[in-house]
Amino acid sequence: MINTIKMKKTIAIDMDGVLADIEAHTLQLYEQHSGISLTKADISGNQEWDLVPDGLFHEFVHKPGFFRNLPVMEGAVEAVEKLSQEFEVYIVSAATEFPLSLSEKQEWLTEYFPSISWRNIVFCGSKSIIGTDYMIDDHRKNLDPFKGKTLLFSAFHNQGQNHHQRFDDWKSIVAFLESELAL
Amino acid sequence: MINTIKMKKTIAIDMDGVLADIEAHTLQLYEQHSGISLTKADISGNQEWDLVPDGLFHEFVHKPGFFRNLPVMEGAVEAVEKLSQEFEVYIVSAATEFPLSLSEKQEWLTEYFPSISWRNIVFCGSKSIIGTDYMIDDHRKNLDPFKGKTLLFSAFHNQGQNHHQRFDDWKSIVAFLESELAL
Repeated sequence: MINTIKMKKTIAIDMDGVLADIEAHTLQLYEQHSGISLTKADISGNQEWDLVPDGLFHEFVHKPGFFRNLPVMEGAVEAVEKLSQEFEVYIVSAATEFPLSLSEKQEWLTEYFPSISWRNIVFCGSKSIIGTDYMIDDHRKNLDPFKGKTLLFSAFHNQGQNHHQRFDDWKSIVAFLESELAL
Repeated sequence: MINTIKMKKTIAIDMDGVLADIEAHTLQLYEQHSGISLTKADISGNQEWDLVPDGLFHEFVHKPGFFRNLPVMEGAVEAVEKLSQEFEVYIVSAATEFPLSLSEKQEWLTEYFPSISWRNIVFCGSKSIIGTDYMIDDHRKNLDPFKGKTLLFSAFHNQGQNHHQRFDDWKSIVAFLESELAL
């Protein structure tokens, strides 16, 4: 008898800037703080820590509640739901740099992605030991050492980088990964 | 010129039952609770959730402070220090099952293993996507799907299992891994 059981391919999906819209939230906090309304176009090309002026991003990130209150990225919920049917999806977030964020991030995932089991959540520092088939991330430092296929999620801080295949939204990522299934 | 830079081999080290002496702490809590003093020999061969009678292990584990107050395993500090000279050491703990434990575990590591960077800490559920060269763990479920070399750390709940090379203490693990360097 031929064994027809096929292991699902695995995907590591980043949180900040990929599942969670850290840009939108930071711009909103900056407006509350300074009264100045910046758009995503205004900050395009900035380094991550200069997302908003005066080092305020650093200050915002370290306040309790920052990671718990991030809005979900457009299209992310539907995309993860769709991908979970054909792939084994892991959420892999570089969270140990901010120990306070750990429980906030898990609560956030429980709210927006309740179908993701705790078994499929990874909070780490370096992602260099993650051994999935695909990795979706907005940071080159995470994608560069990865041995599988890499997908760069567009963000203000990675404009102009062309070391990994770039995707501007979740719709194009789902289309790409579905085309991979046919290979 | 010959490039003599050699990448360090990577090790994933578990926390509970390997770096942290969860048995000793649970037996102490049980004695405080019931007045009955059990030894490690008394519980040898028990299933993990039956470490102590009456389902009390489950109760202890879910109380705030449980993971923060675990004693460090004998020889673990010296072993990690020694191994870090020749290997890239990652601490990989299945912590997302207990979200409250996440910050406690990171605080614990900061106290006992201050030289371990946040970059080398991984809190996860399933360890099946961890891609290090070695894994040291007391659970077969973590070692079975691992693609690298496996080291089973002896614990009350894994007695009699012979699917992975067994080590009774940190001294024998260091000796084994140092002998691997010569290969």
